[in-house]
Amino acid sequence: MVTSPSGARAVARCDELGTVPYSDVAGMLFRPYLGGGHGATLDRLATWMEAAGMLARIDAAGNLVGRYEGLVADAPALLIGSHVDSVRDGGRYDGMLGVILGIEAVAWFAERGRRFPFAIEVIGFGDEEGSRFPVSMLTTRAVAGTLGGQDLDLRDGEGTTLAEALASFGLDVAQLDGAARRRDDILAYVEAHIEQGPVLEAENRALGVVSAIAAQYRLRAVVGGVAGHAGTMAMHLRRDALAAAAEMVLAIETIGGGGPDDLVATVGRLEAHPGVPNVVPGEVAFSIDIRAGTDVARDCAAGAVRRALDEIAARRRVSLDLALQQDLPATPCDAGLTALMGQAACAATGEDAPRVLVSGAGHDAMVIARLAPMSMLFIRCAGGISHNPAESVREADVELALRTMTDFIARYERQGS
Amino acid sequence: MVTSPSGARAVARCDELGTVPYSDVAGMLFRPYLGGGHGATLDRLATWMEAAGMLARIDAAGNLVGRYEGLVADAPALLIGSHVDSVRDGGRYDGMLGVILGIEAVAWFAERGRRFPFAIEVIGFGDEEGSRFPVSMLTTRAVAGTLGGQDLDLRDGEGTTLAEALASFGLDVAQLDGAARRRDDILAYVEAHIEQGPVLEAENRALGVVSAIAAQYRLRAVVGGVAGHAGTMAMHLRRDALAAAAEMVLAIETIGGGGPDDLVATVGRLEAHPGVPNVVPGEVAFSIDIRAGTDVARDCAAGAVRRALDEIAARRRVSLDLALQQDLPATPCDAGLTALMGQAACAATGEDAPRVLVSGAGHDAMVIARLAPMSMLFIRCAGGISHNPAESVREADVELALRTMTDFIARYERQGS
Repeated sequence: MVTSPSGARAVARCDELGTVPYSDVAGMLFRPYLGGGHGATLDRLATWMEAAGMLARIDAAGNLVGRYEGLVADAPALLIGSHVDSVRDGGRYDGMLGVILGIEAVAWFAERGRRFPFAIEVIGFGDEEGSRFPVSMLTTRAVAGTLGGQDLDLRDGEGTTLAEALASFGLDVAQLDGAARRRDDILAYVEAHIEQGPVLEAENRALGVVSAIAAQYRLRAVVGGVAGHAGTMAMHLRRDALAAAAEMVLAIETIGGGGPDDLVATVGRLEAHPGVPNVVPGEVAFSIDIRAGTDVARDCAAGAVRRALDEIAARRRVSLDLALQQDLPATPCDAGLTALMGQAACAATGEDAPRVLVSGAGHDAMVIARLAPMSMLFIRCAGGISHNPAESVREADVELALRTMTDFIARYERQGS
Repeated sequence: MVTSPSGARAVARCDELGTVPYSDVAGMLFRPYLGGGHGATLDRLATWMEAAGMLARIDAAGNLVGRYEGLVADAPALLIGSHVDSVRDGGRYDGMLGVILGIEAVAWFAERGRRFPFAIEVIGFGDEEGSRFPVSMLTTRAVAGTLGGQDLDLRDGEGTTLAEALASFGLDVAQLDGAARRRDDILAYVEAHIEQGPVLEAENRALGVVSAIAAQYRLRAVVGGVAGHAGTMAMHLRRDALAAAAEMVLAIETIGGGGPDDLVATVGRLEAHPGVPNVVPGEVAFSIDIRAGTDVARDCAAGAVRRALDEIAARRRVSLDLALQQDLPATPCDAGLTALMGQAACAATGEDAPRVLVSGAGHDAMVIARLAPMSMLFIRCAGGISHNPAESVREADVELALRTMTDFIARYERQGS
């Protein structure tokens, strides 16, 4: 085991936390919020935080917070973090790498006796994935002050309420509001995270800087045609719901590929009815997921999709029912912080300009953005694979990420925070 | 109830047989082979046959055969028929209308004391749909002499073998071979049937003449792409199995619509995996059903489909596995009989030329074609709907079909059989 702060040690620490007792299930990583693996993980992380000169505490929502004091007492903090929970049979770096990079960055300064006009706090959020309760980002909402009293009644798959789970984790439910942070106490929030996508790898880059967390629409489309015998219904008389839906899938793909780079449009689910080989399908239902870096780009694409689908339905004489199921606006990253992060990344990688990406996936930063300006750093992962035990990062990339984080902190100090 | 032979009486008789005791299930028509409804139906049909001057018998396979003797004893027979069994919750005219039109035609001649140099036999086949055992057309195969001994071991959904079912219907299994007819005894086979498709209705025609029962291929296609996060996988890096399959569905539709009128190509079943809204599909499986009036047209379309799908798969960098699951050659109707049937139909409808169709669905005639030359007459049905209680025919159309059948028989006599 490497004993000084480094990308290699960050990876080794993630790997160490990838098994029992840090997982609730033997043979895989599954670390849901407030489970036994969660508790063991916080104990281990707290040890590392304290070795890095931080004072560690667990807040009322089960988040682990390590504080590295500034040059003066009670200084407001630069918050660095991500989440410590995982999906079932998840990867070892999703979330956890961002928490450990925060600890490594502080350890690097602590070794050099460097302190700043601000404190640095490293936070390991307890619930981002929503693996246990039917809602995600419970703990970031607790910190942002947007968790409601009714959330305490949420039940997990075994019927345990959030209130009961907090209590059995040794937390005082009556103090839950205390997890919320004051705006004055948090200067900014920084999160490093694996990309969970294939773009950096495809472009042979180690790091990327996030400009925004994508705006998202999710819709459900139902196409109604006329079912008929596959042998007896002449082609020109058909109103084939599946052929119509196929044309719609291609229109959605074309619109998704014809906008800005960060625009994506996906049909992930499609069901044809009655769904037997010798019957022309009479009804097809499918999902549409549209994401983009700005609300305008998403809305523009959604409008184009709607017009294209209406045209196809009219021309093919099938009915179309489009229902909006989810509407999440974009969360822009702070422009100033993102510029600093880009400079720090380029200093580490030697690139002239940083690769700026939109995050298509949601992150804790999306919620914390309501509390403080935020910035995100993306780290290349193999094959874009995440939420899977095959999740993988290169030590060299993580080393560059660590240098970027420390350089970012130094630049943040220089620009006068 | 009309008491003389007519289209109206034929429809009324079909309607009478559409409920208990002629169905095995109350509230719907379900008349599987060798069930209680089948037995009751044969008794009722036998009454009508005998009233029409026929001698009725049940053969060793459970087919009802009514014989109207010719001018001389033991003359070979013109066979007229269809099936008396139904699918679950089926329609009242599929199959049965052809049997009853045979009875009505004989009754029409019997009323006039007309006999022919040949006998006329009306046959009600017991199993065409395959509603009870896992194989269809058991009874036509018995008559054509192609039923094998191993078929007796077939089991229905309750574990009863075909041999046991025949015995409990009062039939002698040891005599099953006796259901096979000698070629010399059957001059020709004629079957009237509802179209089960929308073509005649769309063209405002009562009747059609069948040129062939379609050749059919059934294939299973599996497209392998790369699954990915719908939010993080950039459009240009995707290998989306569903988008590729959608393009294939449209290519199949285009090829199906670009050939002869009787060519049809259908994707009836399609399944996308993992099939969730936020994941780009990694694998899609779908069925392909291709039918045409000739083997050549079917094979040509299948070749075009294969080339189009290969091109799409290569361009989109997805894998494609195509497996042939069913290969049925076309069964041409007899040209001479079909010409006669067309003349008879035009005499009835007043049209200059008959509408000649390919039957996309299989029929008893397909099997009996191995024993004797055959011809089929199609009758318009509402909306092309069949295998459904909404199945419907017009009395006026059935009247035209009855005139066509009787005229066909007279023409068949004149041309010297």
